Amino acid sequence: MLRARVTITLKQGILDPQGDTVRSALAALGFDGVADCRVGKFVLLRLTESDRAKAAAQVEEMCRRLLANPVIEDFRFELEEIP
Amino acid sequence: MLRARVTITLKQGILDPQGDTVRSALAALGFDGVADCRVGKFVLLRLTESDRAKAAAQVEEMCRRLLANPVIEDFRFELEEIP
Repeated sequence: MLRARVTITLKQGILDPQGDTVRSALAALGFDGVADCRVGKFVLLRLTESDRAKAAAQVEEMCRRLLANPVIEDFRFELEEIP
Repeated sequence: MLRARVTITLKQGILDPQGDTVRSALAALGFDGVADCRVGKFVLLRLTESDRAKAAAQVEEMCRRLLANPVIEDFRFELEEIP
């Protein structure tokens, strides 16, 4: 079995008001060393497929068709073996 | 400068209806090889701190105090150098 860790973020250049709000909130708590903050989504998938190449192709397709909006979002993922 | 990639997920055992919905939607699209799906948050932070140990301590504290809810969520993060 494989586990896919998918992260989805807004593309560079797309405004991210949620990220700005988090940065302000962190600054208000005293964390003033944050130059930039972007908020995205994270999806953890447990796949029955055990072939890495096939799994990668499946996850790529899932991101394109459902998980991410390719117009405004970038995605990236890593696969790891699980018992 | 350092970049922190923070992923926040619901702890194991906490129900994740959003994840279940995504799994059903994937199955409806024909992706039937997904045994489990959990949805979480992803936060990308650009830090002015360049010392890895100090940065890690800061991010850990940010997660505890604002980014994650330690009662029901787990977090993990990685730091990477950026120019």
